[in-house]
Amino acid sequence: MTPRKLVYAFADGFADGRADMSAQLGGKGANLAEMCLMGLPVPPGFTLTTDVCTHFNAHDRAFPEGLKTQVEAALERLSEDIGMVFGDIKNPLLVSVRSGSRASMPGMMDTVLNLGLNDETVESMAAKTGDARFAWDSYRRFQQMYGDVVMGIDHDYFEDIIDDYKFENSLSLDADLAADDWRYICTRFGDMMEQEAGHPFPQDVHAQLWGAIGAVFDSWNNRRAQTYRKLHDIPDDWGTAVNVQSMVFGNLGQTSATGVAFTRNPSTGAKEIYGEYLINAQGEDVVSGIHTPLYLTKTAREEAGTPDLSLEESMPDAYSDLVQVFAQLESHFCDMQDVEFTIQNGRLFILQTRNGKRTVMAGLKIAVDMVAEGVIDQEAAVLRVEPEALEQLLHPTLDPRAKVTVLTKGLPASPGAASGKIIFSADHAEEMAAQGEKLVLVRMETSPEDIHGMYAAQAVLTSRGGMTSHAAVVARGLGRPCVSGAGQLIIDYDTKTARIGQGESAIELAEGDVITVDGTSGRVMAGEVATLEPELSGDFGTLMGWADAASRMKVRTNAETAAEAKRARKFGAQGIGLCRTEHMFFDAQRIFQVRQMILAQDEAHRQTALEALEPEQRSDFVELFKIMDGLPVTIRLLDPPLHEFLPTPDDNVEALAEALGQSPKALRATITAMAESNPMLGHRGSRLAITSPDIYAMQLRAIFGAMKDAGANPQVEIMFPLISEPRELAMLLDMVPDIAKPFGIAETAYQLGTMIEVPRAALLADELAAQVGFFSFGTNDLTQTTFGLSRDDAGGFLPHYVAKGLLDRDPFSQLDERGVGGLMAMAVEKARATRADIKLGICGEHGGDPSSIGFCESLGLDYVSCSAFRVPIARLAAAQSAIRARTKS
Amino acid sequence: MTPRKLVYAFADGFADGRADMSAQLGGKGANLAEMCLMGLPVPPGFTLTTDVCTHFNAHDRAFPEGLKTQVEAALERLSEDIGMVFGDIKNPLLVSVRSGSRASMPGMMDTVLNLGLNDETVESMAAKTGDARFAWDSYRRFQQMYGDVVMGIDHDYFEDIIDDYKFENSLSLDADLAADDWRYICTRFGDMMEQEAGHPFPQDVHAQLWGAIGAVFDSWNNRRAQTYRKLHDIPDDWGTAVNVQSMVFGNLGQTSATGVAFTRNPSTGAKEIYGEYLINAQGEDVVSGIHTPLYLTKTAREEAGTPDLSLEESMPDAYSDLVQVFAQLESHFCDMQDVEFTIQNGRLFILQTRNGKRTVMAGLKIAVDMVAEGVIDQEAAVLRVEPEALEQLLHPTLDPRAKVTVLTKGLPASPGAASGKIIFSADHAEEMAAQGEKLVLVRMETSPEDIHGMYAAQAVLTSRGGMTSHAAVVARGLGRPCVSGAGQLIIDYDTKTARIGQGESAIELAEGDVITVDGTSGRVMAGEVATLEPELSGDFGTLMGWADAASRMKVRTNAETAAEAKRARKFGAQGIGLCRTEHMFFDAQRIFQVRQMILAQDEAHRQTALEALEPEQRSDFVELFKIMDGLPVTIRLLDPPLHEFLPTPDDNVEALAEALGQSPKALRATITAMAESNPMLGHRGSRLAITSPDIYAMQLRAIFGAMKDAGANPQVEIMFPLISEPRELAMLLDMVPDIAKPFGIAETAYQLGTMIEVPRAALLADELAAQVGFFSFGTNDLTQTTFGLSRDDAGGFLPHYVAKGLLDRDPFSQLDERGVGGLMAMAVEKARATRADIKLGICGEHGGDPSSIGFCESLGLDYVSCSAFRVPIARLAAAQSAIRARTKS
Repeated sequence: MTPRKLVYAFADGFADGRADMSAQLGGKGANLAEMCLMGLPVPPGFTLTTDVCTHFNAHDRAFPEGLKTQVEAALERLSEDIGMVFGDIKNPLLVSVRSGSRASMPGMMDTVLNLGLNDETVESMAAKTGDARFAWDSYRRFQQMYGDVVMGIDHDYFEDIIDDYKFENSLSLDADLAADDWRYICTRFGDMMEQEAGHPFPQDVHAQLWGAIGAVFDSWNNRRAQTYRKLHDIPDDWGTAVNVQSMVFGNLGQTSATGVAFTRNPSTGAKEIYGEYLINAQGEDVVSGIHTPLYLTKTAREEAGTPDLSLEESMPDAYSDLVQVFAQLESHFCDMQDVEFTIQNGRLFILQTRNGKRTVMAGLKIAVDMVAEGVIDQEAAVLRVEPEALEQLLHPTLDPRAKVTVLTKGLPASPGAASGKIIFSADHAEEMAAQGEKLVLVRMETSPEDIHGMYAAQAVLTSRGGMTSHAAVVARGLGRPCVSGAGQLIIDYDTKTARIGQGESAIELAEGDVITVDGTSGRVMAGEVATLEPELSGDFGTLMGWADAASRMKVRTNAETAAEAKRARKFGAQGIGLCRTEHMFFDAQRIFQVRQMILAQDEAHRQTALEALEPEQRSDFVELFKIMDGLPVTIRLLDPPLHEFLPTPDDNVEALAEALGQSPKALRATITAMAESNPMLGHRGSRLAITSPDIYAMQLRAIFGAMKDAGANPQVEIMFPLISEPRELAMLLDMVPDIAKPFGIAETAYQLGTMIEVPRAALLADELAAQVGFFSFGTNDLTQTTFGLSRDDAGGFLPHYVAKGLLDRDPFSQLDERGVGGLMAMAVEKARATRADIKLGICGEHGGDPSSIGFCESLGLDYVSCSAFRVPIARLAAAQSAIRARTKS
Repeated sequence: MTPRKLVYAFADGFADGRADMSAQLGGKGANLAEMCLMGLPVPPGFTLTTDVCTHFNAHDRAFPEGLKTQVEAALERLSEDIGMVFGDIKNPLLVSVRSGSRASMPGMMDTVLNLGLNDETVESMAAKTGDARFAWDSYRRFQQMYGDVVMGIDHDYFEDIIDDYKFENSLSLDADLAADDWRYICTRFGDMMEQEAGHPFPQDVHAQLWGAIGAVFDSWNNRRAQTYRKLHDIPDDWGTAVNVQSMVFGNLGQTSATGVAFTRNPSTGAKEIYGEYLINAQGEDVVSGIHTPLYLTKTAREEAGTPDLSLEESMPDAYSDLVQVFAQLESHFCDMQDVEFTIQNGRLFILQTRNGKRTVMAGLKIAVDMVAEGVIDQEAAVLRVEPEALEQLLHPTLDPRAKVTVLTKGLPASPGAASGKIIFSADHAEEMAAQGEKLVLVRMETSPEDIHGMYAAQAVLTSRGGMTSHAAVVARGLGRPCVSGAGQLIIDYDTKTARIGQGESAIELAEGDVITVDGTSGRVMAGEVATLEPELSGDFGTLMGWADAASRMKVRTNAETAAEAKRARKFGAQGIGLCRTEHMFFDAQRIFQVRQMILAQDEAHRQTALEALEPEQRSDFVELFKIMDGLPVTIRLLDPPLHEFLPTPDDNVEALAEALGQSPKALRATITAMAESNPMLGHRGSRLAITSPDIYAMQLRAIFGAMKDAGANPQVEIMFPLISEPRELAMLLDMVPDIAKPFGIAETAYQLGTMIEVPRAALLADELAAQVGFFSFGTNDLTQTTFGLSRDDAGGFLPHYVAKGLLDRDPFSQLDERGVGGLMAMAVEKARATRADIKLGICGEHGGDPSSIGFCESLGLDYVSCSAFRVPIARLAAAQSAIRARTKS
């Protein structure tokens, strides 16, 4: 039996591995192998696979069987390749030992350089390079690094020795120390290390190597690596590979150098070499910030107006090699590369290449350019851009150069940044805005009554509520930046002040104070912070066109107003997937009629109120139908509990009482009596229509009337919310044709459907599907009911769940595939088995979340629907899901 | 091809049908057939099957093919059997046409008697009987009945003719009218009928017959029959059979009689003939109440002290035949029979037999006696008693002889009846009760804070809330009668008054007024109404013993206090299935500490409060463990949201603020801030322990301490509520062993489990089952989340759903098998696949509902748990389910 291959060698023109083996070799190791196969100048070495890491961590730091032998063989081969011998006194081979996981985790794990130096090899290195100071300096650096990483000795101990030595010898800078100084310090280091660690610094280079390998594997589980993985969704069981690579030195004098470079400009995407380098330096010097690195190209140097020569000028041959390598790398990896290189005595070595990080704008440009260059095809370009990142292009953003004073943080509930004066009341906000004031509406939480104030304000800040609270959902719909659930904020409406924090450090805010809200990061800042306006470039449009061509699912929008509908079409929405008719009721003029309708004590008053509302709803629909001519428009009949439309008993109810001919006291009592313990689960949605069919009847008349009036041809879809029982649905469907008839609307002119938003609807989806033409998954409510979790009340515990790893993500942001998704899958299967051509969509917040959209693709849904500002993101995510699904099958 | 058999004949010693064919023949028809087969004296006839009814109703009153032929054949045979010919002028056969459905629907459908009389046959009947008056009286009765039932002529028209005739002829009583008078009236009837109906009363007896058959089938769908079916859960598609039977006459003189009898006493169950009869009368005379019927037995007559002879004395031969028939019927049908008989000229005929309705007490006695008599076996006896009916035996009931003035009605939320003075505050109730007052606590709704007042009161009345509202659940647990959701009741706490109704008819109630609450019927009555105390007879114990022997599932109780636990054991509970630890927190003394714990601003105050609570919880558990020695005790850790323990901001919070060292204003603000939008779906259950593990830690210490102290050996089961995620459960389970250790409690000494009460827990039941020893289905919450339906808010619409047939039953009363049950079945399957021996139970309200218990049996659950007063009902239901399951397989 061949033992499992645990060590993969790479050298000039040869490698055991390949670029697509990053699962075993890590990204760095796989790309080193690939570059060797490409014939690029890479210092040879070998990679220990991630399997070794997994075994090592699972078996109390024991290495798997056969590893030692494989490493010895690789070392031997390396020595042959390079003509130097590991541990040899005369011709010692030095190596670096670096981590390298499947996903990039920059700086999270440990590295050991110059490994192979000891009291003997340092001498031969001095002799060989003719630079004793370089050799001893390298040795002491190795000791420090090894002491820290492998032996666990705090770096202060090393610094103290150096400082003491300088003090004793009246030296001040490291540069003042000569070879003998470093030699002496190395001895002191050795003594100290033995004392601190209880065992000496190993002189045996093999012991050094195994110590370093173990330490790098250990560093997979250090705290910062764990945190990074949690933040970036990297599984704990992937493990890291370890790369052992022969050292090259950029600090061997004026013909040596080291640098980092991007094959294109990562900020703008322009096709130009971008990066920096330092002569006579090691990689860490470039990134440390101690020295100011120099430009790579003459153009860049001239633009910056600096006299220091660029690499193009100082080492034209090496530069020309580098340009050559860059061209090879880009055409090979088909993407912009982020490269580390070293020039040792005029000879170029490539130490690492990887796909370079870039701004969204640059990413767009590079993807579109590369299609034009024939490097990649359109679908590859579509896959290149992170959908979520498009958000940045659609909203004003904080100017990164601006200085900010963060007052507090909340949840990033609706993206974008805006500044304004604090205002605590929606009504007041509307008045002030009419006078031209820029405002930030600050509320404990918002209710449907606050919508006009949210619209009037530049941004919204709440002290309660989650990512899908009323404030968050409405703000996203309105395109207003919103920070929700800023729990530190204590608001006192009476005094029109707010407080952050306790005691002396408390910050007091008053109405009129200017603050800036960044709904992208969740930060609340003092004063006005400069922002940058979004600019949709031509590349954006090009890429979105390719995305739509690649998609299977349609992307619709959740919209009620003409403004939202128009914006959504501008963003490419292919119809309305959710028109929440109740939003049309909250209009300041109409709410009075709505309240009369709800509170009327007799049928006549009630009918009068309904009749007054009907033409208004009808004209709203006419507008939407015109904007969405030829496209589907899904109208959800009234959903929330009626008491949500009522004032609170503490509000001024005199005018309403007078209109209703009741005493204010009696009216307050009625309002109190209508309150529900759990309104989310209360008398709402289709349940309203079972007890009071006249509201839905009015809405249906308004819809059919609007179809007649609009002079357009939208595909009207009428949706019944909160259905939990097939017979309930049947009773409601039954009322529709009779209402349509007087308008001359045939049953074929519209479709009827239901939302699947409680588990029972999913469980009985076959019976529901038998009755309707479409389903829309209302995953906000479905998530609430499946978990038994109120999104408005989740702020007190859901973040703990995510922080403690009890849930991977907030299930209101990213669809819970195991639970909620299980119900959806069941519903899809049952529905399609009953009615193969049933149209299936999603209209919860998840309809704008790329990962959830991927799940919808896997379920085979027909469309997703989301707020206007999420439409481009959803279009891109839908395209990527479709491409990935095609590739997989 | 043989045509489908639609007509089943029966005659002396012969029948096409049998007793077990009630689906086709209806109960009456099947039993008539069976009696013929037994050789009993039954007037011969035939039955048209329920299929005919179904066809008739589905095909616009068209009879199925072949029916006419089959009826003709049956008529011919009947004529032969009886020696009379239908429609024959000389020797006419008269028949009755009666409905008879699968389930008894007494008086709901129509009947036609004396069919076959016309202007000719009436004469031969007069000649044959020698009684012209009898013949013409029979004819006019037939005309009236036919006119009403078949021709749809209001009975007033007939009465008017008779009254006019009497007036014209100065006659006053029916008895004053002679044969010729009736003959004349018959003519007038005929004229009137033709005028009213637009066609004449049919002289053709076949036309009469088909008219009557059609009318009886029509009457299946009359309004009162539909209502009755809805009330008694009888499917609309069963249809009725029609029985055509030769007439016998109990009104042919002094040797004829008619009567109804039970083979045992239906009130007491005593083995004695019980019933009444009338000489020279028809069946309708016995039940009409116009004549006072006489006793059947001499003993009964003597006991009543009446001189009118009993049947035993007046017609000893017929009586002796009857006794003989009764013995045969009981031993044949193995149950008490309810029999209708007629004696025609000294000859006994049995017209109907069916299992007799009886009181619960009688039912118990009859079942137990019949086992002793060897008529049925123990399991049959167990199946004889309706579990729900046992309720009557366990609570005080209204004295049925008492006169009542019903003020209003609500939901029958907790059974039993009690009287007392109205009191509007729980605190006040406690004070007054201490002074010996009997009280009825009247609240809009109750909260956990009112428990001491509910306990102090005799009964509870609320104007809001459903069958599973807080008031209902707690009242059932406490054994207090409760009427909830009495929506007409408008309470004004300020003035301590309540109002029912509007305007002049409004009833005003004030604190101190005496009312009576009947939680069994939902009625609220004025003043004190006499009640009867429950008495558990020896038969009860005997039957329950047989039930337990037949059961597979165990029955446990939901109990927190020693009193409840003791009562439950008295009622036969086999352990505690749900100990809601939060109920222990609501004690008036403790709540103050609980509030301090919740509202403490620093860790020290919080710990102090927790430490004060621990010994109290511990001593509660000690008591329960002693009472439940050797039995399982499932303790659910704290479940409700913490703010439920807090006073409302309107309450007096001064004392609490002082204890906490805070200002009342600040405290009120904190309390307001803790309120949740949807507490049902909020920060509660295990979610509390994820954010604040110290409360569960305290409870666990109290449990383990109590195990050490109790000196008893209960099987302790610790249950984590509201789990929605396997990792959440894992984290909590993880804390237990370390807490148990200091008490010397091994991990084998207790079991850990979780509730399945949100859909996600059911969906991920396999992952949960891998971690715990038991599941308890919390079907109250599972119903709420599966439907997306708050039980506290359902009062406004759920009754509409049931009334309109959109739901068969209130899903909080009877488990929703299609939806909630589907999730349960999924969870059971997944759980058992992971851990075959996992213990599965139910602790929602459904655990005490017989139909739901049957469903639990079908799922193979191990136990059900319910409130103490439901335990006997659950035991019986569990036994019946097990017996039925065994019989089926």
